[in-house]
Amino acid sequence: IDHGLLGKQLREEWAKYSQFPTASKASEFAEGNKVTIHGFLSNRRVMGSQMMFADIEVDSGPAIQVESTYKKNGSPAHKALRAMNLYSPVSVTGTIVKLHPGDGPSFSESFPDGISRIDLDLDSIQPLNIFPKDIIISKDAEIPKSKRHLDIRFTDELRTRLLARPHVGAQLRQTLVRLGFTEVETPILFKSTPEGAREFLVPTRKRGKAYALPQSPQQYKQILMASGVRRYFQFARCFRDEDLRADRQPEFTQLDLEMAFATGEDVMRTVEALVSELPAALNSRFVMAKHKNGINGHFHPVSRSSPKPSKDEEPQLSWPEFSTPFTRITYEEAMSRYGSDKPDLRIPFDIRRVDRALPRHFIAKIVGDVKDPIIEAFRFRPDFGSGTIPRSQVMDSVRGLIAGVMKTLPEALAKNPVGQPAPLLVNSEQPMKGLSSLGFDGYVNLMSGEPGLEDFADVQDGDVLVFQARENRPFSGGSTPIGLLRTLFYQAALEQGLLPRSFDFKFLWVRDFPLFTPNNRDDPGQGGKSGFSATHHPFTAPLTDADVELLATDPLKARADHYDLVVNGIELGGGSRRIHLAAMQEYIMRDILKMPHGLPLKGVEQFRHLLEALRAGCPPHAGFALGFDRLCAVLTGTDSVRDVIAFPKNMKGADVLVKSPSAVSPEQLEVYHLRYTAIPLPGQQEQEES
Amino acid sequence: IDHGLLGKQLREEWAKYSQFPTASKASEFAEGNKVTIHGFLSNRRVMGSQMMFADIEVDSGPAIQVESTYKKNGSPAHKALRAMNLYSPVSVTGTIVKLHPGDGPSFSESFPDGISRIDLDLDSIQPLNIFPKDIIISKDAEIPKSKRHLDIRFTDELRTRLLARPHVGAQLRQTLVRLGFTEVETPILFKSTPEGAREFLVPTRKRGKAYALPQSPQQYKQILMASGVRRYFQFARCFRDEDLRADRQPEFTQLDLEMAFATGEDVMRTVEALVSELPAALNSRFVMAKHKNGINGHFHPVSRSSPKPSKDEEPQLSWPEFSTPFTRITYEEAMSRYGSDKPDLRIPFDIRRVDRALPRHFIAKIVGDVKDPIIEAFRFRPDFGSGTIPRSQVMDSVRGLIAGVMKTLPEALAKNPVGQPAPLLVNSEQPMKGLSSLGFDGYVNLMSGEPGLEDFADVQDGDVLVFQARENRPFSGGSTPIGLLRTLFYQAALEQGLLPRSFDFKFLWVRDFPLFTPNNRDDPGQGGKSGFSATHHPFTAPLTDADVELLATDPLKARADHYDLVVNGIELGGGSRRIHLAAMQEYIMRDILKMPHGLPLKGVEQFRHLLEALRAGCPPHAGFALGFDRLCAVLTGTDSVRDVIAFPKNMKGADVLVKSPSAVSPEQLEVYHLRYTAIPLPGQQEQEES
Repeated sequence: IDHGLLGKQLREEWAKYSQFPTASKASEFAEGNKVTIHGFLSNRRVMGSQMMFADIEVDSGPAIQVESTYKKNGSPAHKALRAMNLYSPVSVTGTIVKLHPGDGPSFSESFPDGISRIDLDLDSIQPLNIFPKDIIISKDAEIPKSKRHLDIRFTDELRTRLLARPHVGAQLRQTLVRLGFTEVETPILFKSTPEGAREFLVPTRKRGKAYALPQSPQQYKQILMASGVRRYFQFARCFRDEDLRADRQPEFTQLDLEMAFATGEDVMRTVEALVSELPAALNSRFVMAKHKNGINGHFHPVSRSSPKPSKDEEPQLSWPEFSTPFTRITYEEAMSRYGSDKPDLRIPFDIRRVDRALPRHFIAKIVGDVKDPIIEAFRFRPDFGSGTIPRSQVMDSVRGLIAGVMKTLPEALAKNPVGQPAPLLVNSEQPMKGLSSLGFDGYVNLMSGEPGLEDFADVQDGDVLVFQARENRPFSGGSTPIGLLRTLFYQAALEQGLLPRSFDFKFLWVRDFPLFTPNNRDDPGQGGKSGFSATHHPFTAPLTDADVELLATDPLKARADHYDLVVNGIELGGGSRRIHLAAMQEYIMRDILKMPHGLPLKGVEQFRHLLEALRAGCPPHAGFALGFDRLCAVLTGTDSVRDVIAFPKNMKGADVLVKSPSAVSPEQLEVYHLRYTAIPLPGQQEQEES
Repeated sequence: IDHGLLGKQLREEWAKYSQFPTASKASEFAEGNKVTIHGFLSNRRVMGSQMMFADIEVDSGPAIQVESTYKKNGSPAHKALRAMNLYSPVSVTGTIVKLHPGDGPSFSESFPDGISRIDLDLDSIQPLNIFPKDIIISKDAEIPKSKRHLDIRFTDELRTRLLARPHVGAQLRQTLVRLGFTEVETPILFKSTPEGAREFLVPTRKRGKAYALPQSPQQYKQILMASGVRRYFQFARCFRDEDLRADRQPEFTQLDLEMAFATGEDVMRTVEALVSELPAALNSRFVMAKHKNGINGHFHPVSRSSPKPSKDEEPQLSWPEFSTPFTRITYEEAMSRYGSDKPDLRIPFDIRRVDRALPRHFIAKIVGDVKDPIIEAFRFRPDFGSGTIPRSQVMDSVRGLIAGVMKTLPEALAKNPVGQPAPLLVNSEQPMKGLSSLGFDGYVNLMSGEPGLEDFADVQDGDVLVFQARENRPFSGGSTPIGLLRTLFYQAALEQGLLPRSFDFKFLWVRDFPLFTPNNRDDPGQGGKSGFSATHHPFTAPLTDADVELLATDPLKARADHYDLVVNGIELGGGSRRIHLAAMQEYIMRDILKMPHGLPLKGVEQFRHLLEALRAGCPPHAGFALGFDRLCAVLTGTDSVRDVIAFPKNMKGADVLVKSPSAVSPEQLEVYHLRYTAIPLPGQQEQEES
């Protein structure tokens, strides 16, 4: 490198691109005034050799259109604008020709309110950097994830979602402060405790000692309750070193809250108050824009100050009111009626147990190798709106729907040893097909209109009755086979236009979860010898005195004062009343969960700080954690939390923009008194990658 | 353990302490109404066997006084109240005898506004847990740090500071949103980069890969500027694995902000707007209470809704206005005039270079073994207010002051090879002492009133002239010896009442820091081969074109567009304009700092994501990071950030409440493919503990 030459060139570049005039203040914007605006050159329309229009994009502000005529505006300015690389940052000075009125504030310090567009007669324009030609921006090409900065800059939907997120957060804060909540920041350098999830460790330079990143601020917030803080909240970053399923992130943000002298009931009412104020807050700044052919519930927010005209293909709506109180159902009801611990109440059909109405020959047909199964069914009914569609088309569509679902069944259903799904199409013109397989007795019984079977009493042509068997044993969370089918039929029906898309938000509380769940391979649990772990976390209170009784006799039957908030099939958060008596907490850890005790720094002793705090006259308390990423995703009409996180990690936990996590050398580890273990044999390799 | 018996006892306890009536709503509070209140039994005054008063403490609400008479209120309630352990949480029901009017809102959902005290005639009282007798609470006994929950609960000053913190945060947020800033959360699981500070690593289950905790969101926020986000802010948790000096924490919160199309000047004006709105916000909810005999500037906030009457010994003040624009001085001026890169402008005397005025014999006396030193001096003048104190007492006090400072000099001054401090007392009655050591020439020169020596021209009895030599070389941050002396004299004078205490907030900007600093042992820097590192961080822009010129010729002389915000001798935060041109950024890293380059994942390549983002037409930008813990400490009158952090860590980085960091077993490490290194030999042991 010729150092001198390189230096000289850089000095010239720096001088050229680093000095620029100050932007005009909002108060200076009036027609006829000369103003300076900073932004990005986002578009240029050349009208022959003489005239040119250009758009300057400013973040959250009016549209800026620059007009330049070769003669009128002087050749240097005109030429500079014409030569400039699109998307470059610029400082532009010109005279305001017209201020187009708009509705709403500018959400910016730089522009006056109530202006939708500014037309500027070009005076001078200066580039402040160069957007290089080798970076190709086009509406069609997908931006790779490793260029997240380009994605945020050029994808309006993404940028607007990132704007909506803090707006939602601000409304939540405002409500919480009004309700007397105090924000307290709790440590992120915490310590390892068997709370339930797998933690990240942070080694220290003190040999053998490490911090752990918190899976939630649970223990600190309970200590705050013992500290006399009445109502606490925090937008808390939480960490779980889990194998990333679907749409999980190794770090996520939750709105964490806790209330002293409170029951679960008090917390649920508070959360309803919090959430139900969000639609108005969103409507004050954004509109909901629906893609005409988008999927169910999918939409994106558009800022009211956005310069973009509303397009015909994107009908603009307001967020609907979230009416309170939210529906409440028990976990048992959720699992049996909707086949899910997070039911989607937009789906207009639910599940009934039907095995007593079914004849043996039909049961034999749909049940696999299993004793004494439960058979459940739902009635799917297509909705053709005005009903003007010819009957034959209806039948064809529904047949297509059934075939589509059955062909793409997930493995859990397609290879379910308990039995396959059995969809029967109601078609009075073809009585030998469909319902006839029930036989006469089965048909009559099912159509009897008996309590619980009302849905089946008035079947009509085009309805589909879907039957599915499951083993007769207690629910274990997640979805039942028929719950999954219910969702699959709904989604397929939406895609084929057999049901109308819903932009509603159907909130509900699922409560009375079991206090404990048998251990499984995926969750570390509390490491006790009982064979089961806390369903929520080991601090959850039993629901009633009867559930307290069950602790010693049949703990897996004990219910918890634990409630989940669900909307449209998505779990937004969960909470519980906590155990505020130290003796009860220690009893559950030691004698029920059978965690190690009496050993320094193991099992129960890892929670000694919490037990000490409870012991010091801690009041009864209950709390909640609202998944803030998830909430923002739901409210802005996307399925993925990655669309509301500026710099998300992928399914492997990597940020492909900055390339984290990155290689760490043995030298870097030395300071922590650590080194890598020997590389495992080839056979072991796979195991560790899992 | 007799499981059955334990279970039974716990069930009874749970039934007794977990069910309680709902608290009354704010609207139900009227004289004559029966209400239920939850709180802590904080005081009980027994007036003979018949009558009793008790206080119920509620967090942020009016004082609650319960009255009970044995006969009138019924023996069960009276007895229950009498028998109850103090400090236990209770639910109390009674009839409102009197609502005492108060000023201001209740800051609580549970109580009406404008009430300072509620007198309640006891109906029933129920304990909700028991505060045990073995935990002794007394005003005199200091609560051990391992019982932080007791400290927060029983130390009003601490709890009120923790309340004031989110109130300050809320005002900052409100201003930022008004100014068009968007909050963006950036990842905490980042990656290791040589930005300047020592990082914490977070090993992953993928062999050889680790995240690093961010020392600040610097790189992500610059990427946001390249992403078209105009104004960003975040209350960001930051992490530095430093040996903890004085009042540092391994994790801390900074209000981080960045502005596109902005210069350092724009950022400074924005920060001034932010900070200057804080006094009004604080005054709306708190008063400043001074301890009569407290140290300089020390006070504590008291909530306006607090039930406590203002005590005579704690004069209550308002926070004074912070007038803007703040004073601006250059780094060179700060170091030469105040002897510190974070000057305390409350100190009413500053430093002058005096060596040209001093005779050789005097210089010889105060200078050690050093060539061509610089000699500086300041004039300390005691302030006796009304001036009614007898002259002899004045002289004795000042002599005491000098003796006190000289006896307790820190080692850096007491064993300074360049020379000892030389304080000369002005006393016209003892002309042979004090100034006489200057000799006639020295005296005349110093008193000449020449530019720069004005302070010395009008000395009066009781003044002290303090002289100190230092080596003649460029400043290297921190304090100069005479800067340290200036602070010591000020503090000693306050303690002895020779200067009035100041409750003012003297803000200033220190700017134009050198771009680079020679390497030292403590800071890892950027690992370049140049022998120096970035003073602020390697993304800082040079100040002027002249400084850009110096990069290639004399980089240590180049100044940066870097500014620190300082108040009362405390650095509140720092910021800079950044380099927004990729070529310039890479040139500085590679050719000036001489960081490794061209190697995958080392040196310059670790910043490739940032260089890529800058290259994509990133606009000019500048930003700031305000130390939020430190700001809250200053605003609430304490020296220690530990007083504004709910769960701080000690000097060893430990949270002694939860006992973090904690021991990690070799088994826990295995999942990260890590093991401990062999235990070092005894000689090496000490090194690693440092």
